Amino acid sequence: MIKFNNLSQEVPYLIFKEHYDRAMNAEQKNIEVIAISSYNKEEAEVDSRFVNLKFIDHKQFIFFSNYNSPKSIAFDSHKQISALFYWPFINVQIRMKSEITKTSIEYNQEYFKNRSIAKNVLAISSNQSQEIKSYEHVIRKYNDTMDNNDLLICPDYWGGFSFTPYYFEFWEGNNSRLNKRDVYQIRDKNWEHIIIQP
Amino acid sequence: MIKFNNLSQEVPYLIFKEHYDRAMNAEQKNIEVIAISSYNKEEAEVDSRFVNLKFIDHKQFIFFSNYNSPKSIAFDSHKQISALFYWPFINVQIRMKSEITKTSIEYNQEYFKNRSIAKNVLAISSNQSQEIKSYEHVIRKYNDTMDNNDLLICPDYWGGFSFTPYYFEFWEGNNSRLNKRDVYQIRDKNWEHIIIQP
Repeated sequence: MIKFNNLSQEVPYLIFKEHYDRAMNAEQKNIEVIAISSYNKEEAEVDSRFVNLKFIDHKQFIFFSNYNSPKSIAFDSHKQISALFYWPFINVQIRMKSEITKTSIEYNQEYFKNRSIAKNVLAISSNQSQEIKSYEHVIRKYNDTMDNNDLLICPDYWGGFSFTPYYFEFWEGNNSRLNKRDVYQIRDKNWEHIIIQP
Repeated sequence: MIKFNNLSQEVPYLIFKEHYDRAMNAEQKNIEVIAISSYNKEEAEVDSRFVNLKFIDHKQFIFFSNYNSPKSIAFDSHKQISALFYWPFINVQIRMKSEITKTSIEYNQEYFKNRSIAKNVLAISSNQSQEIKSYEHVIRKYNDTMDNNDLLICPDYWGGFSFTPYYFEFWEGNNSRLNKRDVYQIRDKNWEHIIIQP
């Protein structure tokens, strides 16, 4: 699930929430799973991965990760990303484009101390996406961290990422492939709405 | 479903097929849905969208689309892409990176004439992702095309895209977040296998 706080009342946010509520009513599994795609300018390489979106706070979409991870390095190198939901139980895809930034240290610390300790152990112990000898070493690091760290203190290499889309596409699949596609994009500080072909 | 033809027997392809078979046995819905992410160098913009993967032909992953679509223009501008499966029924994510190319005209024509006419109507009628006045205009174009075109002739603006990954990550989710992550990447023409941290 995604937690909504003080959701923006601008049109694409309201449409987003309508689809989300329909997907929840349809008992969509893994509704918070979102594909985040980035470009690393130094490597000249696109990459993507699924993460769990935690919050939509007014206009900000927020998830958490390791700040030394490859995606964090890519965000530093090229701030613009794309984000993608697909909720098959209602056959809706939501495509977004945005710039991305880190949340504040205070925000991260506050969030961290209210998370489960089990999750915090991994956040502290894992050098995300770095090579390791074996999966057994992953488990050993995890257990060592559990025994030897204050699990309520957020490390400086872990925290939130926030993005506020400048582009939304709401794609509704149709059995005959006559999919409905509604685009909202910012033009002169306002949301322009257009319909695009399937 | 994805059709496998003469699948490569190299290790990451065999692992891919093992996960695929497990997901099929778990009755994974929408198993062919894959997120394809691209970078448009002129716009300096990452974008992504879900498509249906149709074939894995030896080492080539193949899907079909409009050759004038924004993704096709992005592929021309920057040939490297990422591709992402998530099969929640077995909690497996597969991440790939690759270069992408078009399939041949002959391949497209052969495929097109064996597809359903209903699908072909849309392939012919739609200027994919171009603005249109209304959804009613989409339906009207579709009906006009059905009445006035040879629906077995593949238009030159429609066909396949093929990619052969140089990088695979097999990510297996674990309830305690101690996810297993196995990476296969080409080094000196061979597949190197490493384990990375969750």
